[in-house]
Amino acid sequence: MNIRFYNAKILCLKDAATRTYQCIEGELWVRGDEIVYVGDGSDAERVLPGQAALSWDREIDATGKLLLAGFKNAHTHTAMTFLRSYADDLPLQSWLHEQVFPREGQLTEDDVYWLNILGIMEYLTSGITSNFDMYFFPPVDAKASVDTGFRTVQTSGLNNFGGSVELMEENYHIVNEMSDLTSFIVGFHAEYTTSMELMEGVAALAQKLKSPVYMHNSETKLEVEECLQRYGKTPTQLTEALGMYEYGGGGYHCVWMDDTDFEIFKKRNLTAVTNPASNLKLASGVAPIHRYLQEGISVAIGTDGPASNNCLDMFREMFLTTALAKVRENDAAVVGANEVLYMATSAGAHAMGLPDCDDLAVGKKADLIMIDLMQPNMQPENNLVKNLVYSGSKQNVALTMVNGRILYENGKFDIGFDPNEIYAKANAIIGRMK
Amino acid sequence: MNIRFYNAKILCLKDAATRTYQCIEGELWVRGDEIVYVGDGSDAERVLPGQAALSWDREIDATGKLLLAGFKNAHTHTAMTFLRSYADDLPLQSWLHEQVFPREGQLTEDDVYWLNILGIMEYLTSGITSNFDMYFFPPVDAKASVDTGFRTVQTSGLNNFGGSVELMEENYHIVNEMSDLTSFIVGFHAEYTTSMELMEGVAALAQKLKSPVYMHNSETKLEVEECLQRYGKTPTQLTEALGMYEYGGGGYHCVWMDDTDFEIFKKRNLTAVTNPASNLKLASGVAPIHRYLQEGISVAIGTDGPASNNCLDMFREMFLTTALAKVRENDAAVVGANEVLYMATSAGAHAMGLPDCDDLAVGKKADLIMIDLMQPNMQPENNLVKNLVYSGSKQNVALTMVNGRILYENGKFDIGFDPNEIYAKANAIIGRMK
Repeated sequence: MNIRFYNAKILCLKDAATRTYQCIEGELWVRGDEIVYVGDGSDAERVLPGQAALSWDREIDATGKLLLAGFKNAHTHTAMTFLRSYADDLPLQSWLHEQVFPREGQLTEDDVYWLNILGIMEYLTSGITSNFDMYFFPPVDAKASVDTGFRTVQTSGLNNFGGSVELMEENYHIVNEMSDLTSFIVGFHAEYTTSMELMEGVAALAQKLKSPVYMHNSETKLEVEECLQRYGKTPTQLTEALGMYEYGGGGYHCVWMDDTDFEIFKKRNLTAVTNPASNLKLASGVAPIHRYLQEGISVAIGTDGPASNNCLDMFREMFLTTALAKVRENDAAVVGANEVLYMATSAGAHAMGLPDCDDLAVGKKADLIMIDLMQPNMQPENNLVKNLVYSGSKQNVALTMVNGRILYENGKFDIGFDPNEIYAKANAIIGRMK
Repeated sequence: MNIRFYNAKILCLKDAATRTYQCIEGELWVRGDEIVYVGDGSDAERVLPGQAALSWDREIDATGKLLLAGFKNAHTHTAMTFLRSYADDLPLQSWLHEQVFPREGQLTEDDVYWLNILGIMEYLTSGITSNFDMYFFPPVDAKASVDTGFRTVQTSGLNNFGGSVELMEENYHIVNEMSDLTSFIVGFHAEYTTSMELMEGVAALAQKLKSPVYMHNSETKLEVEECLQRYGKTPTQLTEALGMYEYGGGGYHCVWMDDTDFEIFKKRNLTAVTNPASNLKLASGVAPIHRYLQEGISVAIGTDGPASNNCLDMFREMFLTTALAKVRENDAAVVGANEVLYMATSAGAHAMGLPDCDDLAVGKKADLIMIDLMQPNMQPENNLVKNLVYSGSKQNVALTMVNGRILYENGKFDIGFDPNEIYAKANAIIGRMK
């Protein structure tokens, strides 16, 4: 498809190093899965001779709208949609062991497929164009993405209760080769659920495949204390000692870090993926985002799964990322809006191995969203980035495009499935378990 | 207007004392400004003979929708919309004195009128049906509400830099007598901005008018420390000693409270109005919501003004109220969803002197909202109250009705003003000040 946006405001990076954005007024052209022009239109004929005369499949008048790179949900368990509002108000350990694990054990591959699609629909409503997903059956999770047109990066949730290093290697190849929309990065659930033998296997696999490694890392104080008791090392120090990070990677949550942990993240160029809503709701704590930035450590943002959050809303996560940092540091000036927007877009893309999805520019993938500025929460237009991060909401998402395809527009999905059928399946799956 | 909702799910209180809700499937009828029937429809002819045959002005098929009482925004400064995204990332005192006060000094009554309407539009998108507003020119603020059909409770922002007790008394009568949609409760800005002489005048006025009293109370640690230095008492103890609370009232924010403060709130049946997003963003702290509930003290929820929040979104405030309490108490079990929904609806109504707007029941005012459940963030329907509080978003608000009038439906406003004209005015007002 050839799609032309005109009369648009286009938010793109001016200088990534300083997290500076510029707003270009004009046109953005998509050909196939790629952005081929961004500018005011005056130089389009020179830059792309003959292209303006191309027959467009769609020409979209973006008056009053803002185009920006889609959000990257850098940590989630998408198919946990079935447990939304099912077992809330419990601490992490009992929530996992008493509520989550027993029900997850009943999930079939077919269940996971449909529950993924429900989660993908929710992502689209929030302007999320790709997810970094850890769940059972990565090839099934990936197929749900391909079938809906959504971009996904899968990792393994390997632990003592399921999976194997061999299966992960198999899934690595299956998912990486499945589609342009799918990729796979080595990972495992967490130190507290995974034996030393398995972790050594993960490290060896990462080195063999030259892959980064991700895991749940230092989510709760208890997790770190128990790891120290078991191994005399924090989760970060233990996995570093095992040789996990030769090709980079990072951790999900990263709430309870010591000085050496920060040093390792810095040295290995690891990404801390923060999940603020989930960390609050499970009373896990508030991550030291300001310190990561001060140390030059990359931060990305994830929703975590819908059973712990309970929704998949990047606007909520962006506001929490800045607002919690301010109250944690007792300083309203820390972690500004530009930093947070960069985390939710570019830094997420880099953490997920998607360097072509990090910005709106010529040659980048057409993973973008259109924000309706003509709504009361986006007015006045004193500062568009601040409006997005401090005031933005799902109701501002007018359009979500992944890989050049419009999957969500004006509240309607174009993903090849009837939403009501998806809702019915999700209710039936959890209904079966009650 | 006579309006019939059918095929609806209707969420209403089953037992206020235990914050228990029930979901009735069936019909809700509105005649004029009042709810005249709630039930499954089978007893409608017996309860209201001949009424079903009335010609309805609108019959609304609410299949897949949930009706509930509108949210009460129990503390805000609506007209501060002009400062949204203008002066962020500053601590409270410098934010107020360097950024806010100098620009507010330039506002005309006409400016405040239009800025109020922008705020009211935003309330409607978030299912907020009334506000408890403190700002300049209460009669102008109230007129903006009347002209759009919105319900408002005004209080005074009296302080050393503006207003007088005499003017407050005058506004009390003007606003209370203006319309069924408007009322006025005695109040002043805060101890730290108001002289002892003025505070004594406020106390005398409250006793004369038999009015509750509200003020910003213990928002920051510094505020409490300085009050202790000045008077040897906390703001709560000082105002109690001045005789402010003979007819009740409460405080906005109420973050930094000591044991005696809790005792006073309990003894005087005062409401603590929490403003979690603003308290985070200005690095003021996290209010002790769990303790209020344990002590039996009523808690309501407000957005605070759009310059400090920066948006007017009750879904965000509800999630923050529960999630921050969990992390503050290091206990994921505290302050559940039912408690929070009660705060955002019934407790807010009671704090604002609106006992007829606290629930959906026969004889109550028709201040209600319709939530679209057939969206991915509301599925599956494991628990509707939890879905609302943990996952709800502005994009689920299909309809907002105030006093029997539909002011917002499917993204469109019916408030007698062109939204684009309101946006243009807001941009012009702040543009003039730059």
